[in-house]
Amino acid sequence: MVSKRDAMNECLDSADDRAIEFWFEFGSNYSYLSVMRIEEAAARLGVSVRWKPFLLGPIFRSFGWETSPFVLQKAKGEYVWRDMARECLKHGLPWTRPTVFPRVALLPLRVALVGAGHSWMGTYCRRMMSLNFAEDREIDSHETVAAVLGKLGLSAQPIIDEAQSAANKLRLRQQTEAAQAKGIFGAPTFFVRGEMFWGNDRLDDALRNAASL
Amino acid sequence: MVSKRDAMNECLDSADDRAIEFWFEFGSNYSYLSVMRIEEAAARLGVSVRWKPFLLGPIFRSFGWETSPFVLQKAKGEYVWRDMARECLKHGLPWTRPTVFPRVALLPLRVALVGAGHSWMGTYCRRMMSLNFAEDREIDSHETVAAVLGKLGLSAQPIIDEAQSAANKLRLRQQTEAAQAKGIFGAPTFFVRGEMFWGNDRLDDALRNAASL
Repeated sequence: MVSKRDAMNECLDSADDRAIEFWFEFGSNYSYLSVMRIEEAAARLGVSVRWKPFLLGPIFRSFGWETSPFVLQKAKGEYVWRDMARECLKHGLPWTRPTVFPRVALLPLRVALVGAGHSWMGTYCRRMMSLNFAEDREIDSHETVAAVLGKLGLSAQPIIDEAQSAANKLRLRQQTEAAQAKGIFGAPTFFVRGEMFWGNDRLDDALRNAASL
Repeated sequence: MVSKRDAMNECLDSADDRAIEFWFEFGSNYSYLSVMRIEEAAARLGVSVRWKPFLLGPIFRSFGWETSPFVLQKAKGEYVWRDMARECLKHGLPWTRPTVFPRVALLPLRVALVGAGHSWMGTYCRRMMSLNFAEDREIDSHETVAAVLGKLGLSAQPIIDEAQSAANKLRLRQQTEAAQAKGIFGAPTFFVRGEMFWGNDRLDDALRNAASL
Protein backbone atom coordinates (compact mmCIF):
# COMPACT_ATOMS: atom_id res chain seq x y z
CA MET A 1 0.00 0.00 0.00
CA VAL A 2 2.00 2.99 -1.25
CA SER A 3 0.22 6.33 -1.48
CA LYS A 4 0.53 8.66 -4.49
CA ARG A 5 2.51 11.07 -2.33
CA ASP A 6 4.97 8.38 -1.23
CA ALA A 7 5.37 7.20 -4.83
CA MET A 8 6.18 10.77 -5.84
CA ASN A 9 8.73 11.04 -3.05
CA GLU A 10 10.36 7.80 -4.22
CA CYS A 11 10.69 9.33 -7.70
CA LEU A 12 12.28 12.44 -6.21
CA ASP A 13 14.65 10.22 -4.25
CA SER A 14 15.97 8.47 -7.32
CA ALA A 15 16.17 11.74 -9.28
CA ASP A 16 18.68 13.09 -6.77
CA ASP A 17 21.29 10.50 -5.96
CA ARG A 18 23.23 12.77 -3.61
CA ALA A 19 20.62 12.03 -0.95
CA ILE A 20 20.47 10.23 2.37
CA GLU A 21 17.35 8.59 3.75
CA PHE A 22 17.21 9.23 7.48
CA TRP A 23 14.97 6.86 9.46
CA PHE A 24 14.51 8.05 13.03
CA GLU A 25 12.29 8.09 16.12
CA PHE A 26 11.91 10.89 18.66
CA GLY A 27 12.02 8.34 21.48
CA SER A 28 15.42 6.98 20.41
CA ASN A 29 18.46 8.45 22.16
CA TYR A 30 20.91 7.65 19.37
CA SER A 31 18.48 9.26 16.91
CA TYR A 32 18.88 12.42 19.03
CA LEU A 33 22.58 12.61 18.10
CA SER A 34 21.83 12.25 14.39
CA VAL A 35 18.83 14.59 14.31
CA MET A 36 20.95 17.35 15.86
CA ARG A 37 23.83 16.85 13.39
CA ILE A 38 22.49 15.62 10.06
CA GLU A 39 21.18 18.77 8.38
CA GLU A 40 24.37 20.77 8.79
CA ALA A 41 26.66 17.82 8.05
CA ALA A 42 24.70 16.89 4.91
CA ALA A 43 24.62 20.49 3.65
CA ARG A 44 28.41 20.69 4.01
CA LEU A 45 28.73 17.78 1.60
CA GLY A 46 25.97 18.87 -0.78
CA VAL A 47 23.78 15.94 0.26
CA SER A 48 20.00 16.29 0.67
CA VAL A 49 18.20 14.71 3.62
CA ARG A 50 15.06 12.61 3.11
CA TRP A 51 13.43 12.59 6.55
CA LYS A 52 11.76 9.27 7.38
CA PRO A 53 10.09 9.35 10.79
CA PHE A 54 8.76 5.95 11.89
CA LEU A 55 7.59 4.08 14.97
CA LEU A 56 10.27 1.97 16.63
CA GLY A 57 7.80 0.26 19.01
CA PRO A 58 6.16 -2.05 16.43
CA ILE A 59 9.62 -3.06 15.15
CA PHE A 60 10.76 -3.99 18.67
CA ARG A 61 7.49 -5.81 19.34
CA SER A 62 8.02 -7.86 16.16
CA PHE A 63 11.20 -9.17 17.88
CA GLY A 64 9.16 -10.04 20.98
CA TRP A 65 10.45 -7.03 22.94
CA GLU A 66 7.92 -4.97 24.88
CA THR A 67 10.25 -1.97 25.18
CA SER A 68 13.73 -0.70 24.23
CA PRO A 69 16.60 -3.22 24.45
CA PHE A 70 18.33 -0.58 26.61
CA VAL A 71 15.63 -1.22 29.20
CA LEU A 72 15.44 -4.99 28.67
CA GLN A 73 19.23 -5.53 28.85
CA LYS A 74 20.29 -4.05 32.16
CA ALA A 75 24.07 -4.07 31.60
CA LYS A 76 23.79 -2.53 28.12
CA GLY A 77 21.23 -0.02 29.39
CA GLU A 78 23.55 1.22 32.12
CA TYR A 79 26.39 1.59 29.64
CA VAL A 80 24.26 3.49 27.12
CA TRP A 81 23.78 6.47 29.43
CA ARG A 82 27.53 6.83 30.00
CA ASP A 83 28.07 6.49 26.27
CA MET A 84 25.42 9.14 25.53
CA ALA A 85 27.02 11.63 27.94
CA ARG A 86 30.40 11.14 26.24
CA GLU A 87 28.95 11.28 22.71
CA CYS A 88 27.10 14.51 23.46
CA LEU A 89 30.30 16.02 24.83
CA LYS A 90 32.14 14.91 21.68
CA HIS A 91 29.54 16.50 19.41
CA GLY A 92 29.02 19.61 21.54
CA LEU A 93 25.40 18.78 22.32
CA PRO A 94 23.52 19.37 25.57
CA TRP A 95 22.47 16.23 27.45
CA THR A 96 20.17 15.31 30.31
CA ARG A 97 19.41 11.67 30.95
CA PRO A 98 15.64 11.38 30.45
CA THR A 99 13.75 10.32 33.57
CA VAL A 100 11.28 8.49 31.31
CA PHE A 101 12.68 6.21 28.62
CA PRO A 102 11.74 5.49 25.93
CA ARG A 103 9.33 8.41 25.63
CA VAL A 104 6.19 7.97 23.53
CA ALA A 105 6.20 10.40 20.59
CA LEU A 106 3.17 9.50 18.49
CA LEU A 107 1.86 13.00 17.82
CA PRO A 108 5.35 14.46 17.26
CA LEU A 109 6.06 11.69 14.73
CA ARG A 110 2.75 12.21 12.92
CA VAL A 111 3.58 15.92 12.65
CA ALA A 112 7.08 15.02 11.44
CA LEU A 113 5.50 12.99 8.65
CA VAL A 114 3.56 16.09 7.61
CA GLY A 115 6.69 18.21 7.89
CA ALA A 116 9.03 15.89 6.00
CA GLY A 117 8.80 17.86 2.75
CA HIS A 118 8.85 21.30 4.38
CA SER A 119 11.71 23.67 5.14
CA TRP A 120 10.79 23.76 8.87
CA MET A 121 11.37 20.01 9.31
CA GLY A 122 14.96 20.15 10.58
CA THR A 123 14.31 22.85 13.16
CA TYR A 124 11.11 21.13 14.29
CA CYS A 125 12.90 17.80 14.80
CA ARG A 126 15.83 19.36 16.65
CA ARG A 127 13.42 21.17 18.98
CA MET A 128 11.48 17.96 19.70
CA MET A 129 14.67 16.03 20.39
CA SER A 130 16.03 18.80 22.64
CA LEU A 131 12.86 18.69 24.73
CA ASN A 132 13.29 14.93 25.28
CA PHE A 133 17.06 14.61 25.67
CA ALA A 134 18.28 18.02 26.82
CA GLU A 135 15.30 19.30 28.86
CA ASP A 136 13.87 15.95 30.03
CA ARG A 137 10.31 16.90 29.08
CA GLU A 138 7.37 14.87 27.83
CA ILE A 139 6.71 15.55 24.14
CA ASP A 140 3.60 13.56 23.22
CA SER A 141 0.99 16.25 23.87
CA HIS A 142 -1.03 18.65 21.72
CA GLU A 143 0.11 21.55 23.90
CA THR A 144 3.83 20.85 23.51
CA VAL A 145 3.69 20.19 19.78
CA ALA A 146 1.54 23.28 19.20
CA ALA A 147 3.99 25.40 21.19
CA VAL A 148 6.95 24.13 19.15
CA LEU A 149 5.19 24.77 15.83
CA GLY A 150 4.09 28.20 17.03
CA LYS A 151 7.67 29.13 17.92
CA LEU A 152 8.63 28.26 14.33
CA GLY A 153 6.17 30.92 13.18
CA LEU A 154 3.73 28.31 11.89
CA SER A 155 0.00 28.05 12.33
CA ALA A 156 -0.06 24.95 14.53
CA GLN A 157 -3.69 23.83 14.38
CA PRO A 158 -3.96 23.06 10.63
CA ILE A 159 -0.70 21.11 10.79
CA ILE A 160 -1.86 19.12 13.82
CA ASP A 161 -5.23 18.52 12.15
CA GLU A 162 -3.47 17.12 9.09
CA ALA A 163 -1.17 15.07 11.33
CA GLN A 164 -4.15 13.57 13.16
CA SER A 165 -6.14 12.82 9.98
CA ALA A 166 -6.97 9.19 9.25
CA ALA A 167 -4.90 9.36 6.07
CA ASN A 168 -1.79 10.57 7.91
CA LYS A 169 -2.20 8.04 10.74
CA LEU A 170 -2.31 5.36 8.06
CA ARG A 171 0.80 6.79 6.39
CA LEU A 172 2.78 6.52 9.63
CA ARG A 173 1.74 2.89 9.97
CA GLN A 174 2.74 2.32 6.33
CA GLN A 175 6.06 4.07 6.84
CA THR A 176 6.73 1.79 9.82
CA GLU A 177 5.84 -1.27 7.71
CA ALA A 178 8.18 0.03 5.02
CA ALA A 179 10.95 0.32 7.62
CA GLN A 180 10.42 -3.27 8.60
CA ALA A 181 10.34 -4.41 4.97
CA LYS A 182 13.69 -2.66 4.41
CA GLY A 183 15.23 -4.68 7.25
CA ILE A 184 15.41 -1.78 9.73
CA PHE A 185 15.91 -3.10 13.26
CA GLY A 186 16.84 0.05 15.19
CA ALA A 187 17.23 3.81 14.92
CA PRO A 188 18.76 5.85 13.52
CA THR A 189 19.17 4.01 10.22
CA PHE A 190 20.38 5.56 6.98
CA PHE A 191 20.05 4.43 3.37
CA VAL A 192 22.22 5.65 0.54
CA ARG A 193 21.37 4.23 -2.88
CA GLY A 194 19.86 1.17 -1.18
CA GLU A 195 22.84 0.57 1.13
CA MET A 196 21.94 0.44 4.83
CA PHE A 197 23.95 2.18 7.57
CA TRP A 198 22.85 1.63 11.17
CA GLY A 199 23.46 3.93 14.08
CA ASN A 200 24.72 7.46 14.64
CA ASP A 201 28.24 5.98 14.50
CA ARG A 202 27.72 5.41 10.76
CA LEU A 203 26.23 8.81 9.88
CA ASP A 204 29.51 10.21 8.62
CA ASP A 205 30.25 7.10 6.53
CA ALA A 206 26.76 7.24 5.04
CA LEU A 207 27.11 10.94 4.19
CA ARG A 208 30.52 10.44 2.59
CA ASN A 209 29.03 7.58 0.59
CA ALA A 210 26.12 9.80 -0.52
CA ALA A 211 28.48 12.62 -1.51
CA SER A 212 30.76 10.42 -3.62
CA LEU A 213 28.75 9.94 -6.80
CA MET B 1 38.71 -15.78 43.75
CA VAL B 2 41.64 -13.72 42.47
CA SER B 3 44.93 -15.53 41.89
CA LYS B 4 48.30 -14.13 42.97
CA ARG B 5 49.16 -13.60 39.33
CA ASP B 6 45.95 -11.66 38.62
CA ALA B 7 46.49 -9.56 41.74
CA MET B 8 50.00 -8.74 40.50
CA ASN B 9 48.62 -7.76 37.10
CA GLU B 10 46.08 -5.47 38.76
CA CYS B 11 48.98 -3.76 40.54
CA LEU B 12 50.80 -3.33 37.24
CA ASP B 13 47.61 -1.90 35.71
CA SER B 14 47.26 0.80 38.30
CA ALA B 15 50.98 1.59 38.20
CA ASP B 16 50.71 2.55 34.54
CA ASP B 17 47.67 4.71 33.95
CA ARG B 18 48.38 5.15 30.24
CA ALA B 19 46.86 1.73 29.68
CA ILE B 20 43.82 0.27 28.01
CA GLU B 21 42.15 -2.96 29.10
CA PHE B 22 41.07 -4.85 26.01
CA TRP B 23 38.39 -7.51 26.57
CA PHE B 24 37.89 -9.64 23.48
CA GLU B 25 36.83 -13.03 22.08
CA PHE B 26 38.24 -14.78 19.02
CA GLY B 27 34.69 -15.74 17.95
CA SER B 28 33.54 -12.10 17.89
CA ASN B 29 33.65 -10.35 14.49
CA TYR B 30 33.86 -6.84 15.91
CA SER B 31 36.70 -8.04 18.17
CA TYR B 32 38.50 -8.95 14.92
CA LEU B 33 38.61 -5.28 13.89
CA SER B 34 40.05 -4.22 17.25
CA VAL B 35 42.55 -7.08 17.58
CA MET B 36 44.01 -6.16 14.20
CA ARG B 37 44.31 -2.44 15.04
CA ILE B 38 44.89 -1.99 18.74
CA GLU B 39 48.58 -2.70 19.21
CA GLU B 40 49.77 -0.25 16.54
CA ALA B 41 47.18 2.40 17.43
CA ALA B 42 48.02 2.18 21.14
CA ALA B 43 51.76 2.33 20.52
CA ARG B 44 51.30 5.49 18.44
CA LEU B 45 49.74 7.17 21.49
CA GLY B 46 52.14 5.70 24.05
CA VAL B 47 49.37 3.58 25.58
CA SER B 48 50.00 0.02 26.78
CA VAL B 49 47.51 -2.75 26.04
CA ARG B 50 46.29 -5.10 28.79
CA TRP B 51 44.94 -8.10 26.89
CA LYS B 52 41.86 -9.63 28.51
CA PRO B 53 40.62 -12.67 26.59
CA PHE B 54 37.30 -14.01 27.91
CA LEU B 55 34.43 -16.26 26.90
CA LEU B 56 31.45 -14.44 25.38
CA GLY B 57 29.21 -17.53 25.43
CA PRO B 58 28.53 -17.57 29.20
CA ILE B 59 27.76 -13.82 29.09
CA PHE B 60 25.22 -14.32 26.31
CA ARG B 61 23.74 -17.35 28.10
CA SER B 62 23.28 -15.22 31.23
CA PHE B 63 20.94 -13.07 29.09
CA GLY B 64 19.04 -16.20 28.02
CA TRP B 65 20.66 -16.26 24.56
CA GLU B 66 21.94 -19.58 23.26
CA THR B 67 24.16 -17.95 20.61
CA SER B 68 25.24 -14.56 19.21
CA PRO B 69 22.54 -11.87 18.90
CA PHE B 70 23.69 -11.59 15.25
CA VAL B 71 22.31 -15.10 14.77
CA LEU B 72 19.24 -14.64 16.96
CA GLN B 73 18.19 -11.34 15.38
CA LYS B 74 17.88 -12.05 11.67
CA ALA B 75 17.63 -8.45 10.41
CA LYS B 76 20.55 -7.27 12.52
CA GLY B 77 22.57 -10.35 11.55
CA GLU B 78 22.14 -9.67 7.83
CA TYR B 79 23.20 -6.08 8.31
CA VAL B 80 26.28 -6.99 10.34
CA TRP B 81 27.96 -8.76 7.42
CA ARG B 82 27.52 -5.74 5.15
CA ASP B 83 28.83 -3.52 7.92
CA MET B 84 31.84 -5.81 8.47
CA ALA B 85 32.77 -5.75 4.77
CA ARG B 86 32.64 -1.93 4.79
CA GLU B 87 34.53 -1.60 8.08
CA CYS B 88 37.30 -3.92 6.87
CA LEU B 89 37.60 -1.86 3.69
CA LYS B 90 37.78 1.31 5.79
CA HIS B 91 40.55 -0.11 7.99
CA GLY B 92 42.43 -1.85 5.17
CA LEU B 93 41.80 -5.33 6.57
CA PRO B 94 41.11 -8.53 4.63
CA TRP B 95 37.64 -10.00 5.10
CA THR B 96 35.84 -13.25 4.35
CA ARG B 97 32.43 -13.84 5.85
CA PRO B 98 32.90 -16.92 8.05
CA THR B 99 30.80 -19.90 6.99
CA VAL B 100 30.54 -20.88 10.67
CA PHE B 101 29.52 -18.18 13.15
CA PRO B 102 30.22 -17.73 15.96
CA ARG B 103 33.26 -20.02 15.94
CA VAL B 104 34.21 -21.77 19.16
CA ALA B 105 37.67 -20.68 20.32
CA LEU B 106 38.20 -22.32 23.71
CA LEU B 107 41.79 -23.51 23.22
CA PRO B 108 42.88 -20.32 21.41
CA LEU B 109 41.45 -18.27 24.31
CA ARG B 110 43.16 -20.42 26.94
CA VAL B 111 46.46 -19.93 25.10
CA ALA B 112 45.75 -16.20 24.87
CA LEU B 113 45.40 -16.12 28.64
CA VAL B 114 48.87 -17.66 28.91
CA GLY B 115 50.21 -15.24 26.31
CA ALA B 116 48.69 -12.08 27.77
CA GLY B 117 51.90 -11.01 29.49
CA HIS B 118 54.23 -12.04 26.65
CA SER B 119 55.61 -10.09 23.70
CA TRP B 120 54.15 -12.59 21.21
CA MET B 121 50.55 -11.93 22.32
CA GLY B 122 49.65 -9.34 19.67
CA THR B 123 50.96 -11.36 16.74
CA TYR B 124 49.34 -14.53 18.08
CA CYS B 125 45.94 -12.85 18.42
CA ARG B 126 46.10 -11.26 14.97
CA ARG B 127 46.98 -14.63 13.44
CA MET B 128 44.08 -16.36 15.20
CA MET B 129 41.65 -13.66 14.12
CA SER B 130 42.91 -13.76 10.52
CA LEU B 131 42.30 -17.50 10.38
CA ASN B 132 38.68 -17.00 11.47
CA PHE B 133 37.71 -13.82 9.63
CA ALA B 134 40.05 -13.60 6.63
CA GLU B 135 40.66 -17.28 5.83
CA ASP B 136 37.36 -18.75 7.09
CA ARG B 137 39.08 -21.56 9.00
CA GLU B 138 38.24 -23.39 12.21
CA ILE B 139 40.56 -22.36 15.03
CA ASP B 140 39.63 -24.48 18.03
CA SER B 141 42.08 -27.36 17.48
CA HIS B 142 45.43 -28.41 18.94
CA GLU B 143 46.85 -28.68 15.45
CA THR B 144 45.92 -25.14 14.39
CA VAL B 145 47.03 -23.51 17.63
CA ALA B 146 50.32 -25.46 17.61
CA ALA B 147 50.98 -24.40 14.02
CA VAL B 148 50.38 -20.75 14.84
CA LEU B 149 52.65 -20.84 17.91
CA GLY B 150 55.29 -22.71 15.92
CA LYS B 151 55.27 -20.04 13.22
CA LEU B 152 55.95 -17.46 15.93
CA GLY B 153 59.17 -19.37 16.70
CA LEU B 154 57.75 -20.69 19.98
CA SER B 155 57.83 -24.15 21.44
CA ALA B 156 54.11 -24.92 21.17
CA GLN B 157 53.66 -27.93 23.43
CA PRO B 158 54.68 -26.39 26.78
CA ILE B 159 52.45 -23.39 26.08
CA ILE B 160 49.49 -25.61 25.18
CA ASP B 161 50.15 -27.76 28.25
CA GLU B 162 50.04 -24.68 30.46
CA ALA B 163 46.92 -23.44 28.64
CA GLN B 164 45.15 -26.78 29.26
CA SER B 165 46.17 -27.02 32.92
CA ALA B 166 43.39 -27.06 35.50
CA ALA B 167 44.71 -23.79 36.95
CA ASN B 168 44.55 -22.00 33.59
CA LYS B 169 41.10 -23.38 32.75
CA LEU B 170 39.94 -21.99 36.08
CA ARG B 171 41.56 -18.63 35.32
CA LEU B 172 39.61 -18.32 32.05
CA ARG B 173 36.37 -19.03 33.90
CA GLN B 174 37.37 -16.44 36.52
CA GLN B 175 38.26 -13.90 33.85
CA THR B 176 34.81 -14.44 32.29
CA GLU B 177 33.17 -13.97 35.70
CA ALA B 178 35.22 -10.81 36.14
CA ALA B 179 33.95 -9.57 32.75
CA GLN B 180 30.40 -10.11 33.88
CA ALA B 181 31.04 -8.43 37.22
CA LYS B 182 32.39 -5.38 35.35
CA GLY B 183 29.12 -5.12 33.40
CA ILE B 184 30.55 -6.36 30.10
CA PHE B 185 27.73 -7.41 27.75
CA GLY B 186 29.56 -7.78 24.43
CA ALA B 187 32.95 -7.69 22.74
CA PRO B 188 35.18 -5.90 22.20
CA THR B 189 34.97 -3.84 25.39
CA PHE B 190 37.64 -1.46 26.64
CA PHE B 191 38.28 0.01 30.08
CA VAL B 192 40.35 3.10 30.72
CA ARG B 193 40.73 4.04 34.40
CA GLY B 194 37.47 2.24 35.15
CA GLU B 195 35.51 3.88 32.31
CA MET B 196 33.85 1.41 29.92
CA PHE B 197 33.92 1.78 26.13
CA TRP B 198 31.97 -0.78 24.11
CA GLY B 199 32.62 -1.79 20.53
CA ASN B 200 35.32 -1.29 17.93
CA ASP B 201 33.62 2.04 17.13
CA ARG B 202 34.85 3.33 20.52
CA LEU B 203 38.45 2.07 20.31
CA ASP B 204 39.83 5.42 19.17
CA ASP B 205 37.90 7.33 21.85
CA ALA B 206 39.15 4.91 24.51
CA LEU B 207 42.75 5.23 23.32
CA ARG B 208 42.58 9.03 23.26
CA ASN B 209 41.15 8.91 26.77
CA ALA B 210 43.98 6.61 27.91
CA ALA B 211 46.61 8.89 26.34
CA SER B 212 45.29 12.08 27.94
CA LEU B 213 46.58 11.79 31.50
